[in-house]
Amino acid sequence: MAKPTVRPRLFKGTRDRLPAEMIRREKVISVVRQTFERYGFDPLETPAIEHWDILTGKYGEEGEKLIYRLAYKDARTIALRYDLTVPLARVVAMNQDLPKPFKRYQIQPVWRADKPGRGRFREFYQCDIDSVGLASPLVDAEIVAVIAESLRALEMPEFTIRISSRRLLNGLAAFVGVAGRMVRVPLRAGVDEPAGDGEDAFREIAAPVALFRAMDKVDKIGVEGVRAELERIGFEAEAIDRTARLLEYDDGNEETIAFATEIVGDDEDGRAGLAEVAEVFRGAAEMGAPAERLKIDLSLARGLDYYTGPIFETVVTEPKIGSVSGGGRYDDLIEVFGAKAVPATGATLGLERIITVLDEMGRLDAAPTRTRVLVAQIGDGMTEEALRVARDVRDAGVPTEVRFAPGKLGKQIAYAEKRGIGVVVIVAPDEIARGEVGIKDLAKREQVTVPRTEVGARTAAIVGAGAA
Amino acid sequence: MAKPTVRPRLFKGTRDRLPAEMIRREKVISVVRQTFERYGFDPLETPAIEHWDILTGKYGEEGEKLIYRLAYKDARTIALRYDLTVPLARVVAMNQDLPKPFKRYQIQPVWRADKPGRGRFREFYQCDIDSVGLASPLVDAEIVAVIAESLRALEMPEFTIRISSRRLLNGLAAFVGVAGRMVRVPLRAGVDEPAGDGEDAFREIAAPVALFRAMDKVDKIGVEGVRAELERIGFEAEAIDRTARLLEYDDGNEETIAFATEIVGDDEDGRAGLAEVAEVFRGAAEMGAPAERLKIDLSLARGLDYYTGPIFETVVTEPKIGSVSGGGRYDDLIEVFGAKAVPATGATLGLERIITVLDEMGRLDAAPTRTRVLVAQIGDGMTEEALRVARDVRDAGVPTEVRFAPGKLGKQIAYAEKRGIGVVVIVAPDEIARGEVGIKDLAKREQVTVPRTEVGARTAAIVGAGAA
Repeated sequence: MAKPTVRPRLFKGTRDRLPAEMIRREKVISVVRQTFERYGFDPLETPAIEHWDILTGKYGEEGEKLIYRLAYKDARTIALRYDLTVPLARVVAMNQDLPKPFKRYQIQPVWRADKPGRGRFREFYQCDIDSVGLASPLVDAEIVAVIAESLRALEMPEFTIRISSRRLLNGLAAFVGVAGRMVRVPLRAGVDEPAGDGEDAFREIAAPVALFRAMDKVDKIGVEGVRAELERIGFEAEAIDRTARLLEYDDGNEETIAFATEIVGDDEDGRAGLAEVAEVFRGAAEMGAPAERLKIDLSLARGLDYYTGPIFETVVTEPKIGSVSGGGRYDDLIEVFGAKAVPATGATLGLERIITVLDEMGRLDAAPTRTRVLVAQIGDGMTEEALRVARDVRDAGVPTEVRFAPGKLGKQIAYAEKRGIGVVVIVAPDEIARGEVGIKDLAKREQVTVPRTEVGARTAAIVGAGAA
Repeated sequence: MAKPTVRPRLFKGTRDRLPAEMIRREKVISVVRQTFERYGFDPLETPAIEHWDILTGKYGEEGEKLIYRLAYKDARTIALRYDLTVPLARVVAMNQDLPKPFKRYQIQPVWRADKPGRGRFREFYQCDIDSVGLASPLVDAEIVAVIAESLRALEMPEFTIRISSRRLLNGLAAFVGVAGRMVRVPLRAGVDEPAGDGEDAFREIAAPVALFRAMDKVDKIGVEGVRAELERIGFEAEAIDRTARLLEYDDGNEETIAFATEIVGDDEDGRAGLAEVAEVFRGAAEMGAPAERLKIDLSLARGLDYYTGPIFETVVTEPKIGSVSGGGRYDDLIEVFGAKAVPATGATLGLERIITVLDEMGRLDAAPTRTRVLVAQIGDGMTEEALRVARDVRDAGVPTEVRFAPGKLGKQIAYAEKRGIGVVVIVAPDEIARGEVGIKDLAKREQVTVPRTEVGARTAAIVGAGAA
């Protein structure tokens, strides 16, 4: 193929995962899957390509702009999966006879036409657990418990799971004094469509939504930043002060419940929200989540439009990973697909972030290959024997590579070291004539000579593999 | 979200994989992965999105029309992965310091804008093994041996691996008498571009390529069909007769080698091709592939443009699955990316086809869930205790679901049966007061009462799970 050459390169924001990285990744994924399955969640996969109208109207305007659409039959009616929640809702709507609760986990890539940057990718794996079919806050509590148990299994004991509720937030909006009002917010460049010629670059949205959006930014812009933002969109001084009180409030869970009970007063949403938050907290602790890691948090306000009940967010403090999980209840999403309403709740575990940070910290120690043994050959006429030796080692359950041609032993050992293979079996004429082979343990720098017939069992013992 | 409802549906040619299917799939994938790793292959993943110019010019005109392109910045410069071989070539070109041989397997979906039909999907998993860096036919032999071992591990003992070589085919083209000639073939509707106004709807291609394309169809159209096609494009009667001799030739490997030696005569390509085919055959057998399942086959001619050496194709006859694997050597593909030439060979295992047929035959027997135990609760006030019992069973390593609310035992057992959960642990006030729980084995229809403290060990013993 004498064609003009093409410069090999990746599409920005995507990555190759070479074997060494795959092996470290799969270690984390295996721990997480095992935890999910232990709590009764089963695997699900959905296609990468979805009809456009399945995805639209679910992610807010900013999200929707990031969906990759395909050029298909000169139209753009199909697109790439943006998250794993909307596909789940579609699956449940299309398979209404699934036994409920339907508890699934899903670990698949999603695509977002975002500006790539450090830790921000256009293709990345999401890792979701969701439970569909029950409205009980114990189901939300179980999601919280599974996240806590996953972090424990990944040896990240220092974390905080912040818990609140969309309904409690409505109560807090009443306390702030902005419930039921509209406010004019500036159009966001590149996100909102201009209203039309001559009109101001503003749009009207519900004041609580503007409040939650501003609160959601507190980790990035601080309380002063939130105050400034609320001032810009015309909140009164009293409302801003009350918001700041919520954001700055930091106390134990019992105290927080007492404080919130007082400020939501008779507000129906607020009281119901507070009750469910308390139940999530207690339930998760009963299911094994460490109570001291659970924090009822009045400043938590997650962005997504579709939450209806409890919401949660997890921050890992040691190692310093930051936010690794978010989720909440979304009881109204499935009926968008014409199915009868089905309650649902779930969370995303930020797998990529967890893997990246653990990896950078050297916490994912693993050989760069799964191959444990290299069968080397020295001298002429040994190829057939080397192939037979490799068969025996493989039959003993040990991943084995065989050199197809003779070479200097030093070079073959150097190759094994470069590849991260720890054991070299040496097939050489004199030893074979005596019915023997050499086994060299590169880590221990030990070499033994063993009967040819025992090569499988002996190498399996050295690498610690179970017999096949 | 009171939005107009959207009819939930899949994009044609794509599928959801519900838990029961996922569990059967993962069983097959796990066997295949283990086999690959035992032969020293490591996992690799590449992104779904590739630059268009990475993919173009590799799959032939028919293939290229099936690539999904993305609508990106009003251009169409990015596209979805079409196979796993071209991304591998790009990875090798971009990572020239990878130790060689670089042996990788890759199990990821690919996308093709094909007309969906029975067994033909727009999104499907490919499962490739490739070995990059060595030109020895023993490397091709190893690919053949790995495919053979994978099929054995999947309990499909009846198969034939057909072996030939692109160079041997060149020798056969000389025997047929069409080497070095051009022929005019009709334009394929929807594939070839018309030559221009007023010109005939024909194009010139190398006669051997036309010959191989026709030979490649023999399984579909029979020898008579191939004869008719060659006649249409103007092959002489003698050439057609000779082609038919090749297609009809069916004998043992030694006889085939003798016959081919005679007909390729002094043709350099033919002799070299025959030598490498013989070496692939012998090497694969030495590596453990059953010799009686390997067939040197003069009628084998695989379509892809990029093959340069040995080629192979596998047909499973019991169960009757048909072609499950194809591959070959492609020593010139990597240098297309401006890297120095790196020899490479590999094969695709038709995972989807294998899974579908084994599944339809009921050969993938597996529970529809990984959850092994349901903790049921009867009577009031048992929820906390049920949660604690579930913790104990999970701590014993058993995937466990817990009912969050009391209910009739019969209903809870019916739910467990519907879900495919085999064991129900019963938490009820009287038993708990006595420090006991019931364990019901649904398959054996046996129920035992055990001390509350032993619930983890006892359920683990019943489901056969190892302690965590």
